[in-house]
Parts: sequence; C-alpha cells; structure tokens
Amino acid sequence: MPAANPFHADVEAALAAIRAKPPARVFFVACGGSLSIMYPAKFLLDQHSALPSDLFNAAEFTARAPKGLGKDSLVILCSMTGTTKETTAAAEFALSRGAQTVGLTTEKNSPLATVCDHAVGFEAPYSTGVPIDAMNSNYARLYQLVMGLVAMTEGNDLSGALMTSLAALQPAIDRAHVTLAARFADFAPRFAKEDVIYTVASGASFGAAYSFAICVLMEMQWINSQAIHANEFFHGPFEVLDKNRAFILLKGCDSTRALEDRADTFLHRFGSAENILVLDALELDLTGIDPVFRGNLVPLIFFDTLWRFAYQIAELRQHVMLEGRRYMKKLTY
Amino acid sequence: MPAANPFHADVEAALAAIRAKPPARVFFVACGGSLSIMYPAKFLLDQHSALPSDLFNAAEFTARAPKGLGKDSLVILCSMTGTTKETTAAAEFALSRGAQTVGLTTEKNSPLATVCDHAVGFEAPYSTGVPIDAMNSNYARLYQLVMGLVAMTEGNDLSGALMTSLAALQPAIDRAHVTLAARFADFAPRFAKEDVIYTVASGASFGAAYSFAICVLMEMQWINSQAIHANEFFHGPFEVLDKNRAFILLKGCDSTRALEDRADTFLHRFGSAENILVLDALELDLTGIDPVFRGNLVPLIFFDTLWRFAYQIAELRQHVMLEGRRYMKKLTY
Repeated sequence: MPAANPFHADVEAALAAIRAKPPARVFFVACGGSLSIMYPAKFLLDQHSALPSDLFNAAEFTARAPKGLGKDSLVILCSMTGTTKETTAAAEFALSRGAQTVGLTTEKNSPLATVCDHAVGFEAPYSTGVPIDAMNSNYARLYQLVMGLVAMTEGNDLSGALMTSLAALQPAIDRAHVTLAARFADFAPRFAKEDVIYTVASGASFGAAYSFAICVLMEMQWINSQAIHANEFFHGPFEVLDKNRAFILLKGCDSTRALEDRADTFLHRFGSAENILVLDALELDLTGIDPVFRGNLVPLIFFDTLWRFAYQIAELRQHVMLEGRRYMKKLTY
Repeated sequence: MPAANPFHADVEAALAAIRAKPPARVFFVACGGSLSIMYPAKFLLDQHSALPSDLFNAAEFTARAPKGLGKDSLVILCSMTGTTKETTAAAEFALSRGAQTVGLTTEKNSPLATVCDHAVGFEAPYSTGVPIDAMNSNYARLYQLVMGLVAMTEGNDLSGALMTSLAALQPAIDRAHVTLAARFADFAPRFAKEDVIYTVASGASFGAAYSFAICVLMEMQWINSQAIHANEFFHGPFEVLDKNRAFILLKGCDSTRALEDRADTFLHRFGSAENILVLDALELDLTGIDPVFRGNLVPLIFFDTLWRFAYQIAELRQHVMLEGRRYMKKLTY
C-alpha cells in the first residue's frame, strides 16, 4: 500500500519493489561527497528503526566483502554522475551476493543507474548548471527512501511530515543565506589565509562536516583539514587548538547537540572567537519544517550556506573552485 | 562448550555468559584511542560472521540512542583506565535498554569495569610502566572476544589459530623494530619539522592510522593530521598532495590491500618519496602468525613501531610525549 503522502516517483517505485522482499539489513555505500550523505541517512534510520545498517566507502565494501551481505540485504548506493567506478563495482558485487540495490544518481543512463535494481534520480547544481530546489537533492531523495524503510519495518509512516518539511527546506536555506551573509563576509578574509581549517560536528551534521573538509577545503582549496567528531575532539584532536587555529563548528538541533555545545565551550575557552566560525541551528528560521525532522534537515542548510562561504574564500585565494583541482577528473589514476 | 584452545580467562568468562543469551547484534563503543581498536574488531567480525555490528563514539552512541539497541544486543566497550565518563555512561545506557555489556579496561575496579556485566582486563605500557607482551594488549583481548562470537554464531572455531598467532606477535613486533629502525631514523628529522602529516590506510589498518593521527600526532605533538581512508583519498583529500606534503601510508595484507597499493602509486607519482613514509606488511617477518590472521595482526605491528617513531619526532621537537599535552587530564572540561 503506497504511503498517504507519496514520495518522489522513483522512490515510490523502489519502495514498492522492496516491500515485496523487505530487507533484514541495509548497507549505505558510496565514495567521498556521496558517502557524506550516507552519514545522516544512517543517523535517521538508527533513530527511527531497529533495522541494522552499515556505512562503507564503496571500495572498502567490496574488498571487505561483509559476510552478512546476502539475499536479505538492501544496498543503497550513490554517485552524482553515476560513473564512480568503485560504486558501480560495489553494486555489481552486492548483486552477485543476491542483495537488492538502489542507485541514486543524476543520470538515469549512467553505469550505476543501469546496473542497480532500482534507480533514483536527483538534481545537483553541477548537473543542471542552475540552482536547484533542495527538495530535489540527493539528501532529500535518500531521506525519503529511509523513511519508506521505516514505514515498512516499523509501521510508522511519517511521509507526510517529511514531504512537508522538504517543501519548506529551500525557503529556509534562502533565509539562512541572509542570516549568515555578514558573518561569512567577516570570516572569509581571515579563513582565506589559513593553511589548516578543521570542521567539527556530530549526529546528523557529521556528514556535512566531512564533505566540507574533504570535498571543499581539501579538494577545491588545497587547505588541510579533517572533520572531527564533536566528542572525539576531546580525546586527542583538541590539543591542536590555540588562539590561531581555525575551526568551523556546526551546531545542529538533533539529539547530539550537547556534544557540539561542549565543543563550542572549549573552542571559545582556548581559541579565538575570530577564528571559530559557528553555524547554529537555533539562529535559523525553520518555519514549515516539522520539529521531528529539524535535526535531520539543518545539515542541508549548513552545507548549502557553507558552499557560498567557500566561493568567497576561493575568490580571495584567486583559486577557481572546480577548476582548482589538479588531479581529479584531469588525469587517469 | 568452551573452545578447544582457551582464550584469556576474562574473555572465556564473558563468552560463557554470552553463550547463554547469544546476541543478534553488536555495538562497538569507545572514545579516541580506545575507539580506534574497534575499527579492526569490526573488520574481523564482518569478515567472519553475519552478525550485524555498529561502531560509535561513546557520547554519540548514547545521544543517538539507536532504536535497534535492546535485549538482543551485546555492547563491547573499552577505556584504558576505565574512567572515561562518556564510555561508562554509554554502558549504563546500554544496560538500561536491557543489553549485555563487556568492558575492557586495565583497571578491574574502575567505573567502566564495575558497571559492565563482564569486565575483561588488559595490559598497557602506561598502566604498568614497563613494556608489555602484545598478546596482553587491548587489541588481543578484543580479537579473542570477536572470534568467540564468531565461533558462537557461525560454528567456526578459529581460537587455536588466533592464540598461536597472538603468541607469535610480540616477537614479530620486535623484529619489525629492527627492520624499520633505519627508515625511522631517516624520516624523523624531516617529519619533526612538519606542521601537517596525514596517515592513510584501509581495512584492518584504518584504526591504527586513526589512532596515530589523533592520539599521537595531534594530541601529543600538536601536529595537524587526519586519518584518510585509502580509497576516500581519491575522492577529495588527494588534492592536498604535492612534493612537500608528508604522509604515512600503512600497507597491510588484508583483503583491502589493493586500495592501499593504489594510494601508494599515486602518492609516489605526485609526492616526494622522502616525504612519504610507507610501512608495508610484505617487508615484515610474520613467522608464527597464521595466514588467516596476518591481515588482522599487522596493524598492531604498525602501531607499536610507529610509537617508537613518534618518540623520535618528539625528541627532535623537544616535545615530551605525554607531558606535551596542554589540556588533556590537565584541567576540567
């Protein structure tokens, strides 16, 4: 029986097939930026369902060959263009074990979309060349898939609240850009001079911190970085903190907020406020987003606004974003 | 029925109780250096058993409160001194959900050991003040626990091969120190001057790379770092590579070695050999370690030898290791 408030057609089609063979476990599999969205997807699933799940880099997944991967498994994969070789290979490996596969891509004719049992499309600014509505992003489609699994396994249908919340997301992002504009303008000249910038987050926001560290700061700006989990921070990494060290802290509003709050207090105690860029869910206008999903959707707002900050840094460094790569998609490796 | 080749008495006692109520899923929970050993433990379990497992920082675990945590869960926790508050709180949370708990510590009277259903002791150089036999380390006890779970759930008893291999580990470590001494002496003066040193690994070795990055380089030397997964490297992080950037690459001999090999080729193509410290399982004398466990035990050799390298760096930086901390265990936070 389809949900009362239908998800995107691709998601509904995948769920209809999966309902005929409900999975006993889930594997979230991708690389880099596409892997980063799997962290909040697993967070969402962990909070709403007892279904066990794993999260792996695609090459690690295939090489590890988890013994638990089999006919009762659902493997959810993502690659923006659908051409990431490791991810397609992972899908083929999963299929060889009898697992069901869902591939999220922007290209329905791509290798990943073609090889998977079910292809779910999404939009990305780079594939369309124009801004998208966040409701059509990879995150949004993935969350629908997860909440479909929750309804299937737990009988708890929150599809209406999710779809209403996703419809309210882009306006919330647009408002956040206004809220944060002055802060970004203030921080950009200082951060553009930094050789090391750490990102810190927990819970639903960790994936956004990971993506910003590896895909934006390292990949596009050649700035050294690490996404530090807000509690792991206290078990080693915090020793690099001093008055000169630059940090970006994401303070969400999910159940792990206290961890980020504690990191905030410590960062401001031993660092300099001018070097600690804090994005806080509590300063955002989240009108229209259901309270049950606010913690899950805020990371999308963080990530979208941080992209604009990244472009400001790039301009100051005279480092053109996507053209700033020296290796990725420029040579064979 | 106890295994033919018994594990350490603490492990046997825990397994005897767990056998009466075999778990349907496992959670590996700790912080920092103790969390780092959970990565290879999960790798070992994934390769030998279909039992689903999760790995969480302890504070994340409690705040996330996974819906799947319940009476059928086994939660394995570790804290060297047994005083890590987040880890003890995680054990208490797991117990409140009806889960079974095993706590690994060096102190049987510690809060973590006291609160858990089963306490498993281990030795650490810092608790005894003298070198230990690696067979009594946290890794060794954890691996016994995991292989006990494998025997329980899969009927595949590899306890003999594991115990024989663990008995051969310390001699292999001692030989590795000799093998690597000249290389460490060569690299130490250069690496001591670096502000950023990355570690790279995959599979069973990722935990050692993580621990060296956050607990040694960042915590004890205030050197910026990140443990980069060997395949994630190609999806962003590799863009920071140039002739001057310092990397430590761990090349193990588990099923993910091809990922580390690929990173090795790329690192040497665009970096400088003098700035890329490679530790390779294939150059080690692993006599006595059963081939089935070589991939799992090599990371202990990497980690032990890298500690000696860290002390060489510390001396050159005039940065006394454990006293080099400014925050950890020096103030309240």
